[in-house]
Amino acid sequence: MDTREDADTGDVGSWRHYGPSALPKPLEAALEAFAERGYDGTSIRELAARAGLSVPGLYHHYPSKQALLVSLTTTVMHDLLDRSRRALAEAGPTPIERFDAVVESLLRFHMFRRNQAFVASTEMRSMEPEARRAFVALRDEQQRMIDEIVEEGVATGAFVTPYPKDASRAVTTMCVAVASWYRLDGPLSPDELVERYLLIARSTVGARAD
Amino acid sequence: MDTREDADTGDVGSWRHYGPSALPKPLEAALEAFAERGYDGTSIRELAARAGLSVPGLYHHYPSKQALLVSLTTTVMHDLLDRSRRALAEAGPTPIERFDAVVESLLRFHMFRRNQAFVASTEMRSMEPEARRAFVALRDEQQRMIDEIVEEGVATGAFVTPYPKDASRAVTTMCVAVASWYRLDGPLSPDELVERYLLIARSTVGARAD
Repeated sequence: MDTREDADTGDVGSWRHYGPSALPKPLEAALEAFAERGYDGTSIRELAARAGLSVPGLYHHYPSKQALLVSLTTTVMHDLLDRSRRALAEAGPTPIERFDAVVESLLRFHMFRRNQAFVASTEMRSMEPEARRAFVALRDEQQRMIDEIVEEGVATGAFVTPYPKDASRAVTTMCVAVASWYRLDGPLSPDELVERYLLIARSTVGARAD
Repeated sequence: MDTREDADTGDVGSWRHYGPSALPKPLEAALEAFAERGYDGTSIRELAARAGLSVPGLYHHYPSKQALLVSLTTTVMHDLLDRSRRALAEAGPTPIERFDAVVESLLRFHMFRRNQAFVASTEMRSMEPEARRAFVALRDEQQRMIDEIVEEGVATGAFVTPYPKDASRAVTTMCVAVASWYRLDGPLSPDELVERYLLIARSTVGARAD
């Protein structure tokens, strides 16, 4: 596992690497404003000002506030999915190695992308129906990644739980919740948190200690 | 455990009983509006209209939108704490019985009071500093209730985990997250969800199956 410094910066290009987020300026502005005041509490005028654009300039790139929300949350979910897929591609073949890889990816994302996670989950209410369906499909895809590993682990006897799907969802939610309480300048380094949570998450799915 | 019907209606007066929420009209209006559009997206005019009051009439009871938010979230947290204390008072003396009681209380609250839980967590950002501190203190009190049980269980050997505090928080967050996905009209009855999650939560803290 990386040292604390490596975990904060990581090897550029690795799924573990989190630099400053590289969102286009209007999406960065939308992220900050929606996190602070919510979608309905934010005006296009405010978003344009934050992005350093005129209102028509902003509309030139994004035709509506809804388009900004959709573009932001889609980008965020694709980033998480892409990192999780890469973590899985690098992982060893056993269910526990695969489980650890996806759980670590979820954890790091929710430590380093707290605002993104907050806005994506709180502003599902503000997505128009089609956008919401597309967002939920991406979220389900991330969940299925863990579901399949847990089910495979139960089938091979690596995990023991009568409720693989529920346990798998419980693991996802405890990782997602890290965004709500974890602070990078707090007492736990990202690597320490990953170490503790891998152990706790394995317990949750009844991973056998062998 | 109750039958499905009992769980939905419960014995009036029991910590398991969730009738329609008995919030004062202005708080009910604030709850709905904040859940739909967020605190910053809601005007006092809209809140008054939803509560069937004039704006001065609303101000007569609550001097500001902030006062409504604080009153709402404080009421919600006291309800949860009160139910959890009563669940604990009824529970048997062993760590696992005490653990199950508080976990069940958290689960039922987050199944039956989804909007309350959503608004309380998303609008912490909108609380003024003092109100926010008071809210966090109540939330910490709920967390400490489980922390102490888990630590006691580890001390007596009923639970086995090297990270009791982290495991305890992970359990809380998986119960809290139920508010974000659970539907009373979905495939799982409240009792079934409680049964599954008690087992999963016990696994998370390494409860020994004996």
